[in-house]
Amino acid sequence: MPHVHATHPHPEDHLTSSAMLQDIVIGLSDGLTVPFALAAGLSGAVSSSALVITAGLAEIVAGSIAMGLGGYLSGRTEVEHYESELAREYREIQEVPAVEREEVRELLQEIGLSPATVEQAVQELTADSDQWVKFMMKYELGLEKPDPKQAPKSAATISLAYAIGGLIPLSAYFFTTTPDEGLLWSAVITLVCLFVFGYLKSRLTGQPPVWGALKMAGTGALAAGAAFWVARQFQPHEG
Amino acid sequence: MPHVHATHPHPEDHLTSSAMLQDIVIGLSDGLTVPFALAAGLSGAVSSSALVITAGLAEIVAGSIAMGLGGYLSGRTEVEHYESELAREYREIQEVPAVEREEVRELLQEIGLSPATVEQAVQELTADSDQWVKFMMKYELGLEKPDPKQAPKSAATISLAYAIGGLIPLSAYFFTTTPDEGLLWSAVITLVCLFVFGYLKSRLTGQPPVWGALKMAGTGALAAGAAFWVARQFQPHEG
Repeated sequence: MPHVHATHPHPEDHLTSSAMLQDIVIGLSDGLTVPFALAAGLSGAVSSSALVITAGLAEIVAGSIAMGLGGYLSGRTEVEHYESELAREYREIQEVPAVEREEVRELLQEIGLSPATVEQAVQELTADSDQWVKFMMKYELGLEKPDPKQAPKSAATISLAYAIGGLIPLSAYFFTTTPDEGLLWSAVITLVCLFVFGYLKSRLTGQPPVWGALKMAGTGALAAGAAFWVARQFQPHEG
Repeated sequence: MPHVHATHPHPEDHLTSSAMLQDIVIGLSDGLTVPFALAAGLSGAVSSSALVITAGLAEIVAGSIAMGLGGYLSGRTEVEHYESELAREYREIQEVPAVEREEVRELLQEIGLSPATVEQAVQELTADSDQWVKFMMKYELGLEKPDPKQAPKSAATISLAYAIGGLIPLSAYFFTTTPDEGLLWSAVITLVCLFVFGYLKSRLTGQPPVWGALKMAGTGALAAGAAFWVARQFQPHEG
């Protein structure tokens, strides 16, 4: 599941830890939710726990690769996109400086400076082409220079978090004998995990934690319930 | 699969169409990849096409709800986050105006203004508290005011795109009799779709299109291959 990574401009020192935490959150919450729901759905439709486990493992592998590789490739694309936009801005301040100067003027007017100060600031800002381009990249386009090393790190983190998240709901089917029993324990374990995880995640991001816990557990329960219902409708004849 | 939505500040008129397109791209590429890989994995391990279809449908429902609801809730969280940061900035310019004024000064120095212009701009900018806070939100925190209507629209788009994407690889199992046959057609149809889709996506975003097509088809093929291999190792005894 390829992700488009948000690169909000924020203080440098927060960047690494928050990007990694964000990747863990993305991977873990998806891993807990989708394999759980798939296994729950199949539990309503088949009588073999081994089948639920096989499908669950196939899903974990598929999801983990799709998310990890997808995340890596979209991270690479982000780096390429930044570089092509950078080259374009340099070209534009050469070829159409008046247009680009007007864009700087508009941005500075928008923040509430007086006409005289705007003119003075435009003069100073556009005197140096590196500074000028840097300003356009960040404040016109909202692009921060992405770290090329971020993409592989991010991919590995998301992949691993997804796989770990996915093995939690699936583990219940290893320790039980029928899909019904597996589903019961899987639901208990996973909903508790989603609740705790939603609580911690919301505390970290400064949101109301109980509400965050309920949202995450609710999403998992709804996805599992719907998958269960749909799989029942299309129940295969086994054997 | 909840997504954290990027809210790059960019020109207003591009916002709606590019956000929607981005959602379609996310949903469709994940939908084509993960259900395809899951079905491929199961095809290597079970002998009933009905079973592959049941599991595939359960996955599509689970993934579609997790992505859609996850996307909706993270969009809501983004709105709440913006509002709490906004309230905090208003509080801070009341309580610690000197600190906040210094932050404005640093940002203006960073973009390359002379000391005199910085002082003049700081004076003007901090004269009006609304303007001051607006500046801090955008230039210090990199936050743009999110549109509250965006979250439900985005959720619906991602969900639907995921479901449509997922039904494409699965459709092959409807028209064939054995999982092997299904897998063959599913792989052909899906890899062609991923290739075409990757090509178009890259053209839209200004990336090299053939490379984009290969990346997307390659991710799908790798995920499917790995899922196939893993499912084979854990092949259940049917019947």
